Amino acid sequence: MGSIVALGGQVGGAKLADGLYRLRGHALTVAVNTGDDYEHLGLSFSPDLDTMLYTLAGIASASAGWEPEGETQAVHNMIKALGGPDRPIHGDRSLAAPLLRTEGLANGRTLSEITADFCRRLGITARIVPMSDDQVRTYVITEEGSITFQDYFMQLACEPAVRGFQYAGADTARIADGLIEALHADDLEAVILCPANPFHVIRPILEVEGMKELLLKRGAPVIAVTPIIGQRALKGSAAKMMRELGRELSARSVAGEYIRLIDGFVLDSEDVTLVDSVRSLGIDVVALPTIMRSIDDRVALAQEVLDFAGVVRARMDAEAA
Amino acid sequence: MGSIVALGGQVGGAKLADGLYRLRGHALTVAVNTGDDYEHLGLSFSPDLDTMLYTLAGIASASAGWEPEGETQAVHNMIKALGGPDRPIHGDRSLAAPLLRTEGLANGRTLSEITADFCRRLGITARIVPMSDDQVRTYVITEEGSITFQDYFMQLACEPAVRGFQYAGADTARIADGLIEALHADDLEAVILCPANPFHVIRPILEVEGMKELLLKRGAPVIAVTPIIGQRALKGSAAKMMRELGRELSARSVAGEYIRLIDGFVLDSEDVTLVDSVRSLGIDVVALPTIMRSIDDRVALAQEVLDFAGVVRARMDAEAA
Repeated sequence: MGSIVALGGQVGGAKLADGLYRLRGHALTVAVNTGDDYEHLGLSFSPDLDTMLYTLAGIASASAGWEPEGETQAVHNMIKALGGPDRPIHGDRSLAAPLLRTEGLANGRTLSEITADFCRRLGITARIVPMSDDQVRTYVITEEGSITFQDYFMQLACEPAVRGFQYAGADTARIADGLIEALHADDLEAVILCPANPFHVIRPILEVEGMKELLLKRGAPVIAVTPIIGQRALKGSAAKMMRELGRELSARSVAGEYIRLIDGFVLDSEDVTLVDSVRSLGIDVVALPTIMRSIDDRVALAQEVLDFAGVVRARMDAEAA
Repeated sequence: MGSIVALGGQVGGAKLADGLYRLRGHALTVAVNTGDDYEHLGLSFSPDLDTMLYTLAGIASASAGWEPEGETQAVHNMIKALGGPDRPIHGDRSLAAPLLRTEGLANGRTLSEITADFCRRLGITARIVPMSDDQVRTYVITEEGSITFQDYFMQLACEPAVRGFQYAGADTARIADGLIEALHADDLEAVILCPANPFHVIRPILEVEGMKELLLKRGAPVIAVTPIIGQRALKGSAAKMMRELGRELSARSVAGEYIRLIDGFVLDSEDVTLVDSVRSLGIDVVALPTIMRSIDDRVALAQEVLDFAGVVRARMDAEAA
């Protein structure tokens, strides 16, 4: 068994990464989107990194996977009482990582170093790395102008129609050292694009300078898992965005987003009728139960995805021979 | 009835200020020590200001008056889990004011403006002002070197013997505008030095450039209330400091600290035998029950102190005539 690199963010992405982690432990590196990072009350929030940390540490809330279990709102309620912003912030426990992150960054440490420390303290043996230690910010281009994803999400409640995206800073950002190292590992077995919003989670990672070229050059099978089932996204605004961008609302469109980069695509079993259509894009396809309700579901899907990657690799090796 | 200026900090000082507030409402200005302010996790803590805010807002804990009632430790526990400093920080609700303060200061607002906003939102009609909007830091001089009061208190648990104090920045700090205004009020009736540590609460306020001169010039009776009863401090390290500084451990020593500035001194009833001895310092003296266990105790002491200030003023007027 070789090493695995997963790219992801959001709750769905973290769930599959957790399945991979339970199968492969320290042989897993998870590269996490930081394009949705933001500043609030002077603190540096990295929502996708923290979701990944809580999930792999086994302390994420079952019902609200982006925050630790048993979250409370004492700080926020007092902030409101003191006249601070009414905008909901994360709960009390969720403030700890941003507080330490902000202090670490102010002291000249990198986001990678800070994240590695969190992993060590939480007992996570996998490597969780930000996609880059340089700042990248995802902007949503709407009819009313360009706005950071966080403002689009928090202040505008994803209301304005989406016309496009911009990944500010991505073209000069450097891939994080830990990710470069993981992608160069001799035993690299597969790269998994976890089920997450293609536009503001997976795409920002791929847009980091040199990332797509490195993935292509590396030659390990790149497998994407759909976040779209039927005509819906399990969570979040992916379906709405696809409609507004004029894309056909289906898993096939997601595969289309990653075309010329991925070697295999995982549909949900519900979309088994799309297999041939997606295969016509020139990639391997499999339909699997992708909904992860339990920890067992995460592990089962991770195993199926790795098995599929093995099949894809065999095909790639045969073609190269 | 005229206006009142109280100088203070700590729980005891806040209790008497609260008694004065309940008697005089918006006619009270409280100038608060900021020499013990500190940075932790990148946040600006102003412990004496916050104690005053919680107390006058009626939300201070009955058992731990420096924090709001019903405090929890979710943030701190998570910070520890993430490998952050083990040093105890305030509880969850106590983080709200430092978070907003840090953001406000970063945005160029003054500590006075930020504090006034907090007062307004908490429904406090009295004016609570920092002694200065410029930074002053109290250093404890020990045999092992000079150290900020906060480090002395938090990290060294007040262990090293005290040789003296230094109020860094006080000689160039400007008295806060709100305090200058309050001290120049035509109807200023009295200035009350609340019961609090003379060395790191009251003295830093008095050391702000021009403060003592302004109090003397203003001519309103300046009345100090003892934080020492018998040979003990009700709270905190005042008694230990007095011993180590070679002072006689008694309320008389406290009066001695303020000599040439105060016109009257309030002893505790337990120390009634000291009345003549303190009076020999050339000031008016009264012995009163100074222990404030209940809200009624605060109001009763405040009323007695104001009555005493009236007596002192009559004596001063008679002497001037």
